[in-house]
Amino acid sequence: MKFTHEHTDGKARACLLETGRGVIHTPSFMPVGTIGTVKAMSPDELKEMGAEIILCNTYHLYLRPGHEIIKSLGGIHTFMNWDRPVLTDSGGFQVYSLSALRKIEDDGVHFKSHLDGSMHFLGPKEAMEIQQALGSDIAMVLDDCTPYPSTHEYAFTSLYRTVRWAEQCKELQREGQALFGIVQGGLFEDLRRKSAEELIRIGFDGYAAGGLSVGEPKDDMHRMISFTAPLLPEDKPRYLMGIGDLGDVLKAVETGFDMFDCVMPTRNARNGTLFTSRGRISIKREEFKADPGPLDPECQCYTCLNFSRGYLRHLFLSKEILSMRLNTIHNLFFYLQFFENMRKSIQEGNFTEFGTRWKPILT
Amino acid sequence: MKFTHEHTDGKARACLLETGRGVIHTPSFMPVGTIGTVKAMSPDELKEMGAEIILCNTYHLYLRPGHEIIKSLGGIHTFMNWDRPVLTDSGGFQVYSLSALRKIEDDGVHFKSHLDGSMHFLGPKEAMEIQQALGSDIAMVLDDCTPYPSTHEYAFTSLYRTVRWAEQCKELQREGQALFGIVQGGLFEDLRRKSAEELIRIGFDGYAAGGLSVGEPKDDMHRMISFTAPLLPEDKPRYLMGIGDLGDVLKAVETGFDMFDCVMPTRNARNGTLFTSRGRISIKREEFKADPGPLDPECQCYTCLNFSRGYLRHLFLSKEILSMRLNTIHNLFFYLQFFENMRKSIQEGNFTEFGTRWKPILT
Repeated sequence: MKFTHEHTDGKARACLLETGRGVIHTPSFMPVGTIGTVKAMSPDELKEMGAEIILCNTYHLYLRPGHEIIKSLGGIHTFMNWDRPVLTDSGGFQVYSLSALRKIEDDGVHFKSHLDGSMHFLGPKEAMEIQQALGSDIAMVLDDCTPYPSTHEYAFTSLYRTVRWAEQCKELQREGQALFGIVQGGLFEDLRRKSAEELIRIGFDGYAAGGLSVGEPKDDMHRMISFTAPLLPEDKPRYLMGIGDLGDVLKAVETGFDMFDCVMPTRNARNGTLFTSRGRISIKREEFKADPGPLDPECQCYTCLNFSRGYLRHLFLSKEILSMRLNTIHNLFFYLQFFENMRKSIQEGNFTEFGTRWKPILT
Repeated sequence: MKFTHEHTDGKARACLLETGRGVIHTPSFMPVGTIGTVKAMSPDELKEMGAEIILCNTYHLYLRPGHEIIKSLGGIHTFMNWDRPVLTDSGGFQVYSLSALRKIEDDGVHFKSHLDGSMHFLGPKEAMEIQQALGSDIAMVLDDCTPYPSTHEYAFTSLYRTVRWAEQCKELQREGQALFGIVQGGLFEDLRRKSAEELIRIGFDGYAAGGLSVGEPKDDMHRMISFTAPLLPEDKPRYLMGIGDLGDVLKAVETGFDMFDCVMPTRNARNGTLFTSRGRISIKREEFKADPGPLDPECQCYTCLNFSRGYLRHLFLSKEILSMRLNTIHNLFFYLQFFENMRKSIQEGNFTEFGTRWKPILT
């Protein structure tokens, strides 16, 4: 995996991440394909709208259908018919946020499946085995997500657990799969610094910030984003995990983050909330009943080029599958366009103007 | 609308139905787009798989979003972005099968909406007004669907109601929209004959058989299909309403029917039942868990060319939207291919062999 800076504008970076399965232009947005499908989308549609990499969830795929089945069906790319890069998370965050019960021990986590209540164990060895069976292009180390709020003492213990697990994951890394470390440390700057130092000592192909957007105030989140970015190596990709509110993304790109994932565009689409160049709209509103115009007159997506707000409202109220499809196409296209234009603004030295123009629309 | 015979094989016919929005090759299958969308499909996908005409339901579109809204949004074609022919039913059958309560009078039917319990009235005038507002290429007369079982007396009264309504619809027909009559008469041959004679006297652009597949034994249905077809003019399209079991379709084409619609391929797809060249399969079966093969090795649809049974099973069990999409693509493609091959067999004088080959697979 090769990472090249193309342009910088302040601390914001436009880079190229070259993988065996294609180039990723950063800042990059990764649509979330939880269980091996970006909800409501076909792989062809994702390509058409310009998605260069997607994220799949190790936790979900481990539970269903199981990584061994995916391996026997040719790995995650063949399984879902997606030949571009895939990043898999380690499962750590889902165990933290989804499982009915979890018991953290030094060598891993015992947890209860949110699907059927069965008990499972996930340690660094398991996380690597699963991700290797899936065959993702970028794997993540197993991390212990520090809850909010946490005491300094708890965050410290949790952080060192993540560091030890990261070390073990690194030892198990195999040729052909990149591995990213994950900075933890809660809201404590000294711990975030320590975490970054330890991970850099171990040495990874990229560095992520985890444990944010877990309930903390926005100001604290922004503070930690700004604080963490410069701790991470300049010559490696920096990935801000799970954060996709575009206002937060602007903030993070400004500080030097490169990669993002979030369910926001896809989940909102299914709930009828659509992103437009004039702000969010809820498609179910009465005023759109007989509106012949497109969702967003400035948008060139399949939905906006072919269907009226009146039709989209009707599909949404009727709970039609096509509603979820067309809304998802629009929101993902909007996100990917936003990232492309943000990248352009960095290349042209206009990133600040780009942010200034978008901030009032995004809030 | 121009209707031309190309080939006959016994009583089976391969014809061309030319409309202002394109040619329909018969025997023709019309996917059902109930409320202005063939469930789970985009209009582009329908075109790619070769659908030449779709059916939309007047009853559903009248209740939601309302025909006036569709008219103000440019009519049904613009509304759903489908530029090929659309046939609308009259609403008669849905009032019969869906509404919570109906009271038939000489001038129409009072019925209760299945959506919100509100009361509505549908007579021949309303049925024509709604279909004209929708702007379908082929409209159907309002008919009174005779229930099964019915006495001869009831079926007689019901039949003459349909005839009177058909006369009134005919008077309201407008340039640019074809109008088909509907033969009723329950399971009584004398009434079916009378019905056909009366409709022919009025004169329509095509003739349909209604009131079948409403609970009667299969033998009775087949008997009425065989009996009714030769009563209808040779030089006009013959449409067998709502029947789409492919065994029944073979029977009906054999007797000279040309057009068909049914929710079977789309509804079954969403329930995980898939049609293949080797018979039906239920994709949820354990045996497909790690099956790398396509649904149907002989099928060239997008689903079969790109995804394994193992993946499709996983999507179905996970209730993913992509499951309904891929299954629907496959089933509709299978149906449309079946019809295309059936047509070819008529052209080549092999229709009997075609039926003999398929019958054991379809039962």
